[in-house]
Amino acid sequence: MLMARRALSPSQLAVVQAVRPCFDGPERGLVIGCSGGADSLALVAACANVDASRVLAVVVEHGLQADSLRIADATVEAVRGLGVAAEVRSVHVDTTSGEGVEAAARRERLVALVGDGKRPVLLGHTLDDQAETVLLGLARGSGAASLQAMAPSTPHLAGRLVRPLLGLRRSQVRQACLDWGLMPWDDPMNLDPAYLRVRVRHELLPVLDDVLGPGVVEALGRTATLARHDNDLLERLAADAQRDLVRGDSLDAVGLLHLYPALRGRVLRRWMIERGAQAPTMAHVQGVAALVENWHGQGGVDLPGGVRVHRIQGALVARSGDPE
Amino acid sequence: MLMARRALSPSQLAVVQAVRPCFDGPERGLVIGCSGGADSLALVAACANVDASRVLAVVVEHGLQADSLRIADATVEAVRGLGVAAEVRSVHVDTTSGEGVEAAARRERLVALVGDGKRPVLLGHTLDDQAETVLLGLARGSGAASLQAMAPSTPHLAGRLVRPLLGLRRSQVRQACLDWGLMPWDDPMNLDPAYLRVRVRHELLPVLDDVLGPGVVEALGRTATLARHDNDLLERLAADAQRDLVRGDSLDAVGLLHLYPALRGRVLRRWMIERGAQAPTMAHVQGVAALVENWHGQGGVDLPGGVRVHRIQGALVARSGDPE
Repeated sequence: MLMARRALSPSQLAVVQAVRPCFDGPERGLVIGCSGGADSLALVAACANVDASRVLAVVVEHGLQADSLRIADATVEAVRGLGVAAEVRSVHVDTTSGEGVEAAARRERLVALVGDGKRPVLLGHTLDDQAETVLLGLARGSGAASLQAMAPSTPHLAGRLVRPLLGLRRSQVRQACLDWGLMPWDDPMNLDPAYLRVRVRHELLPVLDDVLGPGVVEALGRTATLARHDNDLLERLAADAQRDLVRGDSLDAVGLLHLYPALRGRVLRRWMIERGAQAPTMAHVQGVAALVENWHGQGGVDLPGGVRVHRIQGALVARSGDPE
Repeated sequence: MLMARRALSPSQLAVVQAVRPCFDGPERGLVIGCSGGADSLALVAACANVDASRVLAVVVEHGLQADSLRIADATVEAVRGLGVAAEVRSVHVDTTSGEGVEAAARRERLVALVGDGKRPVLLGHTLDDQAETVLLGLARGSGAASLQAMAPSTPHLAGRLVRPLLGLRRSQVRQACLDWGLMPWDDPMNLDPAYLRVRVRHELLPVLDDVLGPGVVEALGRTATLARHDNDLLERLAADAQRDLVRGDSLDAVGLLHLYPALRGRVLRRWMIERGAQAPTMAHVQGVAALVENWHGQGGVDLPGGVRVHRIQGALVARSGDPE
């Protein structure tokens, strides 16, 4: 712990200040998801600076690359050099599940990190990651729910995910990592243009920065925060409105028509998911909304998950679709 | 009117169907803002196809280019060839006002088009214009109020602006223009990279399209619509909340703290503008919000328009700032 006693560089100080509030909570222990990349190594080092004894770094090994176990072991070694307890947890990623390797790996990784949920899981996402997530949400065109991107703190499975570095630029976090004398591992997946996020990072953001001005990453971050605030309140209002409109298994279509459009779409989406629809898109919501807004006796609307929504006598009814 | 009797091409039909609802209103006459560009010429031709006798095309001549009067006259001639009444209105644009030539020209143009406000003004903005406006709003990072971009129909000065082509792609509207045998005028300002919108159109959107997929213009348009719905309801709720918190000239800071964040920022912004702040940015709103959310006896916050907001005895007070 010699390093921690030295004066901190401005970048190190910024990261330490960002993680400090995580230690104010009632939890005795914190888990840090550590890939060995610059962001999560800096996160571990900053936490070690505050209180190494309360931290466990977990390196999830996905088995997707030939040398993944070697990299995981090297990361554990680097983390232990900071005086932080560390362990490797190996997971199996089903690459044939159809949801994509990125999504499947993310899901398994979070299951492994959250564990029994007793300790909050700190993740190293930065403001740059947030800006990329906003752009990916923008491409979906499904409004505030997409634009809100990642939450600073959010329940997940039985536990909680915390992202203390969400307000810091990636360049600063990387500098802090180097200032701690740590050698980050640069995941080759972060350069593979087969991944949409990689293209957003390396092809789209530089052009946005050039055309719209150098504050664009910060502007995207503010967009996410404001969208989260808006969506939080509107989802709460939608939950209240939904309770008023549910009649057993069906939903009052005439009542829906009298809702504000901001609530109508959200009530429909919530209800569709409760009735078994899986990850409905905005197009699905608009399809069902047409049964309310533009009713002329049309047929039902098919949703992913084998659910079909009909309008019957002024009410929307969801049924498990018969395979045709 | 020979052209109107022929069968319409798919592009012409799309534009005619888009303008048809404009003729359902109670107004006898409609004004069309016509620059001579493809979008507004197609708008005039489509309206002529529905009812030429109810339409007046107005060509605003800004005097910003050497041949602007010649172009305006040629546009009037082309429009009259469609059987539509047309006139030129010349305006003076103050290029030294500090707000920028684009903004000043837009303001003067709308004043000239709206006139006494008795007739709705139809504008030729397309889905592509909307997508560009969303991106410009995204760069500001001020949330749904920016992302909502242009309204399909909105009060303006004493009148109303209507944008019937907001759901159609620019390429389709241009095709319709050509199918009507009209020769659009391509404004050289639309190619000048000194204008931010031009760079968004020609540099940013192609990369967005390439990276995020070909549906990105439509996704940005949906984002605008959803942001408008959200913002409409939240501004209404904020107006109610503001009424509850105003104490004469001041605003109850403790009450603000108990509002949802989505409403707190909006109440502050509304109140600041009412107290004389001019076009406050999100940074200004956040500065004043800190007097509520992070109060530690700090000094006042200066806003554009010479207004300074202090916190005094649990209330926010706005005063015209003394020049220092």
